[in-house]
Amino acid sequence: MNQRTVLFVSDQTGVTAETLGNSLLTQFDGVEFSQMTVPFVDTVDKARRVAATIDRIAVEEGMRPIVITSFVQDEVRAQLLQCKGLVLDLFAAFLGPLEAELQSRSSHTLGRAHGMVDETKYDRRIEATNYAMAADDGHALRNYDKADVVLIGVSRSGKTPTCLYLALQYGIFAANYPLAEEDLETNDMPKALKPHRDKLYGLTIAPDRLRQIRLERRSQGRYATAQQINFEIRAAEALFDRFRIPYIDTTHSSVEEIASTILNDTHLERRVRP
Amino acid sequence: MNQRTVLFVSDQTGVTAETLGNSLLTQFDGVEFSQMTVPFVDTVDKARRVAATIDRIAVEEGMRPIVITSFVQDEVRAQLLQCKGLVLDLFAAFLGPLEAELQSRSSHTLGRAHGMVDETKYDRRIEATNYAMAADDGHALRNYDKADVVLIGVSRSGKTPTCLYLALQYGIFAANYPLAEEDLETNDMPKALKPHRDKLYGLTIAPDRLRQIRLERRSQGRYATAQQINFEIRAAEALFDRFRIPYIDTTHSSVEEIASTILNDTHLERRVRP
Repeated sequence: MNQRTVLFVSDQTGVTAETLGNSLLTQFDGVEFSQMTVPFVDTVDKARRVAATIDRIAVEEGMRPIVITSFVQDEVRAQLLQCKGLVLDLFAAFLGPLEAELQSRSSHTLGRAHGMVDETKYDRRIEATNYAMAADDGHALRNYDKADVVLIGVSRSGKTPTCLYLALQYGIFAANYPLAEEDLETNDMPKALKPHRDKLYGLTIAPDRLRQIRLERRSQGRYATAQQINFEIRAAEALFDRFRIPYIDTTHSSVEEIASTILNDTHLERRVRP
Repeated sequence: MNQRTVLFVSDQTGVTAETLGNSLLTQFDGVEFSQMTVPFVDTVDKARRVAATIDRIAVEEGMRPIVITSFVQDEVRAQLLQCKGLVLDLFAAFLGPLEAELQSRSSHTLGRAHGMVDETKYDRRIEATNYAMAADDGHALRNYDKADVVLIGVSRSGKTPTCLYLALQYGIFAANYPLAEEDLETNDMPKALKPHRDKLYGLTIAPDRLRQIRLERRSQGRYATAQQINFEIRAAEALFDRFRIPYIDTTHSSVEEIASTILNDTHLERRVRP
């Protein structure tokens, strides 16, 4: 298989370059990418050293590396552009058209992306994360009044990672309520949830996949038996239907996709943007 | 202040468009952006409806919206391009040069980005998240053998959000150990940490900032007094210095920046890429 070295280089964290870069690279099946991230390249001197590394890799591999960058500082970018890699600079490609459209020069300053200077944004995410942790299943505190959304579903349907992702990425206060056997045996909505009906969002999952996940966790007892799992999932979905709770099947979805779907369906306002 | 409407539109989650789009927009100080995300626009028909919405906004506001997109499917992108917004398409700008470089057509298929089809990637992130939750301070289980990194610091220095971010974003197994008063009063490394010295990474924070955070949490007792906080931070930093534990000051850093710095300093392999 064709193999290529890819570097994500940035004068900031490189998260933006990594995120877009990975989306692009996954579009190429026949190539195996060896990836590395080089963050905080925020001086001309550091850029010169990274460029030298790139040139060395180009010689060693007999093929130029692919370099995906997101430089805010023009003079640092200019230095890196001297290298022998194929440089795709995310900011350079789009800042120009945006400046023209907005009739305004971009500030070209570090620390704007990802809120380095934005304490409010930071606080909101941390608060939301603390909330998600405190309101996670098994914890005593269930302060659903503060919740923007309450995820409900059977054990291991994906509630906790989704809550944490919503908190860290969007500052959303997401609680979760695990549907236990006693909840599922009645035909009613669990009492703790009744005052919060408008905030509920359900997660479900294919029985086979849930069985696989539960077996890895605890292979003894009823917890991971096909019969128990079928019962739980059928009862949970019946509950969602009966009370018209929107829900998503998480079987083939990533955490990002589950979170995006919930935000899209509920029209919840993001408190923070990634 | 100049105000502009921005739409992030994608045939997938839109997370990539949001991430890069936000980095770009934060470079423009004098403009206030009203943002919305429209994910899962995966048919020509949906694209037609979104284009109609964009055109309506353009008429209502007397100014064309800025549309940042990440379409994988060419025919859906082509339909959206009919709209009257300023469309900046992330994929279109870079897939061309990459195809030329790799001498390979991109697959133009949905669900590659963010691992929709990649169950291993999903599992790793979930496992890492479960681990971070289980190994969080206050929890009994401290299975540091499994940890890739163990973050140590005083209460509220940023350990938990950083661990969770490392797990969700990179699939890294991050545990955390809170430096309690009894740890800080000795001059020694806490016993539980001794076998894991190579995995330790410290977090510190400015006393004023920590005081502000702690006051919001619990204003009674010694916990948030200046004296107590000064003692804890001085002792923690002395511990890091004595045992040559690398550490970062989290005062002015976002979770992304803390995580990127740790990965960069420790040369930890990302198990998953965002």
